[in-house]
Amino acid sequence: MNHRFRTIAAALICTPLLASAAEGMWTLDNLPRAQMQQRYGFDPSPAFVDKLMRASARLAGGCSGSFVSPDGLVMTNHHCVTRCIAQLSSASNDRMKNGFLARDRAQELRCPEVEINRLDAVTDVTDRVKAATAGKQGAAFQAAEDGARAALTRECRGADAENTRCDLVTLYRGGQYQLYKYRRFSDVRLVWAPEEASAAFGGDPDNFNFPRWCLDVAMLRIYDGGKPAPVQDWFRFQPAGAEAGELVLVSGHPGQTRRQLTVAQLETQRDSLAQVGLPGLSELRGVMLQYAKGDAEARRLAGTALQGIENGLKVSNGNLQALLDPALLAGKRVSEQALRDFVNARPALKARVGNPWADIEKAQAARRELETLHAQIEEGRAFSGDLFGLARTLVRGAAERGKPNGERLREFNDNALPQIEQRLRSPAPFHPAFEQVRLGWSLNRLRSLLGPDDPWVKQVLGRQSPEEKAQALVAASRLADPAERLRLWNGGAAAVAQSDDAFIVLARSLDTEARALRRRFEAEVLAVEREAAQRIAAAEFERSGKGTYPDATFSLRLSYGEVSAAPERGRVVAPFTDIAGKLARATGAAPFALPPSWLAAQSGPNPRLNTNQRLNFAATLDTTGGNSGSPILNRRAEVVGLLFDGNLASLGGAFSYDERFNRSIGVHAGAIVEALKSVYQADALLTELLPGP
Amino acid sequence: MNHRFRTIAAALICTPLLASAAEGMWTLDNLPRAQMQQRYGFDPSPAFVDKLMRASARLAGGCSGSFVSPDGLVMTNHHCVTRCIAQLSSASNDRMKNGFLARDRAQELRCPEVEINRLDAVTDVTDRVKAATAGKQGAAFQAAEDGARAALTRECRGADAENTRCDLVTLYRGGQYQLYKYRRFSDVRLVWAPEEASAAFGGDPDNFNFPRWCLDVAMLRIYDGGKPAPVQDWFRFQPAGAEAGELVLVSGHPGQTRRQLTVAQLETQRDSLAQVGLPGLSELRGVMLQYAKGDAEARRLAGTALQGIENGLKVSNGNLQALLDPALLAGKRVSEQALRDFVNARPALKARVGNPWADIEKAQAARRELETLHAQIEEGRAFSGDLFGLARTLVRGAAERGKPNGERLREFNDNALPQIEQRLRSPAPFHPAFEQVRLGWSLNRLRSLLGPDDPWVKQVLGRQSPEEKAQALVAASRLADPAERLRLWNGGAAAVAQSDDAFIVLARSLDTEARALRRRFEAEVLAVEREAAQRIAAAEFERSGKGTYPDATFSLRLSYGEVSAAPERGRVVAPFTDIAGKLARATGAAPFALPPSWLAAQSGPNPRLNTNQRLNFAATLDTTGGNSGSPILNRRAEVVGLLFDGNLASLGGAFSYDERFNRSIGVHAGAIVEALKSVYQADALLTELLPGP
Repeated sequence: MNHRFRTIAAALICTPLLASAAEGMWTLDNLPRAQMQQRYGFDPSPAFVDKLMRASARLAGGCSGSFVSPDGLVMTNHHCVTRCIAQLSSASNDRMKNGFLARDRAQELRCPEVEINRLDAVTDVTDRVKAATAGKQGAAFQAAEDGARAALTRECRGADAENTRCDLVTLYRGGQYQLYKYRRFSDVRLVWAPEEASAAFGGDPDNFNFPRWCLDVAMLRIYDGGKPAPVQDWFRFQPAGAEAGELVLVSGHPGQTRRQLTVAQLETQRDSLAQVGLPGLSELRGVMLQYAKGDAEARRLAGTALQGIENGLKVSNGNLQALLDPALLAGKRVSEQALRDFVNARPALKARVGNPWADIEKAQAARRELETLHAQIEEGRAFSGDLFGLARTLVRGAAERGKPNGERLREFNDNALPQIEQRLRSPAPFHPAFEQVRLGWSLNRLRSLLGPDDPWVKQVLGRQSPEEKAQALVAASRLADPAERLRLWNGGAAAVAQSDDAFIVLARSLDTEARALRRRFEAEVLAVEREAAQRIAAAEFERSGKGTYPDATFSLRLSYGEVSAAPERGRVVAPFTDIAGKLARATGAAPFALPPSWLAAQSGPNPRLNTNQRLNFAATLDTTGGNSGSPILNRRAEVVGLLFDGNLASLGGAFSYDERFNRSIGVHAGAIVEALKSVYQADALLTELLPGP
Repeated sequence: MNHRFRTIAAALICTPLLASAAEGMWTLDNLPRAQMQQRYGFDPSPAFVDKLMRASARLAGGCSGSFVSPDGLVMTNHHCVTRCIAQLSSASNDRMKNGFLARDRAQELRCPEVEINRLDAVTDVTDRVKAATAGKQGAAFQAAEDGARAALTRECRGADAENTRCDLVTLYRGGQYQLYKYRRFSDVRLVWAPEEASAAFGGDPDNFNFPRWCLDVAMLRIYDGGKPAPVQDWFRFQPAGAEAGELVLVSGHPGQTRRQLTVAQLETQRDSLAQVGLPGLSELRGVMLQYAKGDAEARRLAGTALQGIENGLKVSNGNLQALLDPALLAGKRVSEQALRDFVNARPALKARVGNPWADIEKAQAARRELETLHAQIEEGRAFSGDLFGLARTLVRGAAERGKPNGERLREFNDNALPQIEQRLRSPAPFHPAFEQVRLGWSLNRLRSLLGPDDPWVKQVLGRQSPEEKAQALVAASRLADPAERLRLWNGGAAAVAQSDDAFIVLARSLDTEARALRRRFEAEVLAVEREAAQRIAAAEFERSGKGTYPDATFSLRLSYGEVSAAPERGRVVAPFTDIAGKLARATGAAPFALPPSWLAAQSGPNPRLNTNQRLNFAATLDTTGGNSGSPILNRRAEVVGLLFDGNLASLGGAFSYDERFNRSIGVHAGAIVEALKSVYQADALLTELLPGP
């Protein structure tokens, strides 16, 4: 379940060393053809690569997917759509627990907030961005890059803002800039989701482990004008799957790797994770575990939240373990020194790039000073739940939309407005008691982190306790109502200024200083790191050209590898599990309990289930969070599996890849077919997936 | 509230560098007379030192105290007796909330589990222990030291096991062994405790901060034969306190410092704290924060637990911050290398001590492999709450008491039995729902740490979820009843073997393998570290003699320093706070709410309170957890304050002391007197404390 990507406001730096075998998340215009050819005798044709692009999908919220029928059917993971499933649930119909199957298209249910993107074109714009930022530093660098982004994306998008999305993608840490033009689908409907007990069988205890027995799959469909949107390119299902040793490919959207952070940056990350990130998530897990012991509704809401929290905890743990491994930092020091030596030996290059490592190291002091405050106040960690974020969007949106596109905060440029409006319109229900618990906890955490005498803490809490404040805010807000949100959005600055909504008042009162904090963080930390990293990229290009891949940026990449046994806690685990193993592992106690549908299929009067069917498998594919929901393909571009996770070692993949240990985990294509047939009797869906020869 | 010491089964190593000014927790036989004389013109007489020893008290559960009247009145911190206060509370009379004052001796209430020790004699036994362990390593070293401990303590204790306690104290990491002979008092009664809202005013947010406004004091009395036990040596109160710059002394029991761990050991501690310790405590805090939102009884029980958890969290945070500070480890590396160079330059010494640093480094691999498992299973972290610990005591006690004293697990040698029996007899109430919550969480944590397929996890949980297992265990146990515990204790091996109590069954089923795990951990980790550290101590003695102090070992020490302003978050804070400041800081919302007694004293018809009275103060005293409750004395051995905390910087004191930053925090003696007079009208107690000239 790791492979969902949650956007983090951290800088990315991307100038890796030459990749080892099976390593790499490659852009489609720079595939490792020589390596693939040498190892697997495979050299993808231009048509093959083009199909990869057009049949792959991105869930804008942080996952991958693929088109698997000409009628716009999209396959992704169950854990990528839990927010949608929860929003389509109620106390009386818990679709996380019960699952969902639309028996025909009329039964398909619209996900309130899911956006799907299909990549249509990529354009190199490196020269234009570099011309804008040349010679600039700090705040000026940031402003120039923001201005270029706004201009380029508006130009790319043209008149059709509703259906087109353009992202400026920074590759090789500013070594290259590309414009990604997507077809945007905002009417996305849920077709099928199995019960959580089957999708996430083994839950948090099994998460990131292999062997594994999950049916972590869901099907969506894109709509256009109220009808299913047809697609020209889609992947065929291959229920036979792939054999051990067979080449497999993943076409998906890895979110963020940090393989080319400098040693100083990695040390900052280590300390921040150990002191703030991991303890904070742990505490929230404790709150949710206990909240879940309330009534059924509390259990349902906390259960969905816990999925994300526990997944984040395992990721953080894995990242921290890697960062505390002396071998990792030692290796990074060696490779960093090699590039520094390369630069120092070339006076002309040295004159051009200077000492970016020292500049980044200096920025770490500012990062250490500002990071927690920035995360709490500007990123809104202190205000957990959805209401403060909506209030800030309304307060800032009113101010920003009055400015020219290129001068706005980047999340309010024209390109971003459709997604914001979709969120404001969302009819998804709110749960005041649950909002209050999360907010009360995060305000308590704010006070723990900054101390009771910090001016921000005093301004936010006044003379109330965190829990009292949370209660007061939630009780005095109407932002749970989409009509009120749209009234404020459409009413603009005047409506927002007049509002006495408690969250609007809070967001308004913090805004001036929060913006100042953000400007400082961007100028003293982010811009310094990124400008310096561009110079590191320049040095790397001079040394090695583009013989390598850029760090992940939630843009389309290809990974390759093979189905392979997995090393796990000191032993070697066979590459496949089967349905019989799932049945044997079931204890009846969550998260190892099977849902009624599986119990019936297993032991009813006419047991139908083929228990020999392979269920999950491991492969040497180099993937990371954001790749969740990616299709796993064979060399004929047939779906042999569905990527949903990695093993524990893969968590160190944020910083490095080692083919001996890192494994991705997929659901076998045959298991999806077998479950649709024998457990869910989803005949229409089966026919759509397997239309026959 | 940090300064309570919780015993941790970690090895101590004690060979510090020469101490800097005001640094050090000195044994009374090796005081830094030259430094004190030079800086403060103070050279304590033998009679002064003897009085320090006899008027100081130790709370065996992990705190310090002092005798403050000839009738056995003991002053300590409120936070040192919260367990007793909670045990003397019920849903209908919450003495944590309401406070407690015995208006006469008949009203004094016996604390079920408090043991007080008064040190009567110290004997050096280095030669005897070293003769026993000479040339031994690993398990043999451990067995020899355990055997010597059992023999020496039995010999020291003599026939009066009930009233005498003897501890073998390892100083300078085995450079020196001493026998500490204590008069043991197990009938200890509560005399006075203010309301928690006043004692711990500011709660967790203010904890470890200065300025501060806490009345963290409680009074106990030792009894003997049902009557108050008279004492010959006690400290007089001095309500005028001490002025800024004035010499102050602390006579108390610092629990554990780790100033002389090797760099390899510090790195292990850093990683363990970051990956296991801090996340675990954080999660438990979350559980308790949410549990506290239940009914009043849940709030009361969780509130007491949270005090300890949140205090532990701040300590862990402070320790981790110190260990992540590159300057700390760099400094340790330099001093370690200096001693290694000293050894390497002297062939005879080198032949004698070898390379103990390398031996300790090797043991770190075993520590990393075994530590979490050992903590979970053998230290019982997986079985939170009191019932499993009682069950294990009964199961092991039955087996161990059948062996000769010298061959038993050390916690069951004759010296330890009176304390065990006191605990088994304790009439303190149990709260099944609360036991279940804590146990359910810790079993969940066990599974998180070891994974669902670990054999220990499978053996403990079977096919149940952690929460189901916790419920089943608590429901099927009678160990909450002291009569049942005593029946099993007195019935010995036969009674324990026949018991079907769920916790007894669990403890029995784990015992063989848990003992094997312990033996392995002791032989491969603890014994290796301690034997090697003895050789480091030998090298240090050869270089510097005993010009320094040993790491803290929860044995009596003297610290000296002066009342002094405190640096805090970038500014300098005056050394004193006053009662007016407390009133001004009160918001009405916990933990910044004043209790009714204070509100009445402040604003009743006849406001009595002297708001100019100094309340808390800071001093350069070098103290740590375990020092809580220590008297702060002037050079006439008068009580000028009561130590209860340190500032944030003092948490790094586990590893090093820096007079510029480290501060201890005390309650002013005058504030105790003022509160007794004007808030609590405790006339009898006042008369006892201030008997007049």
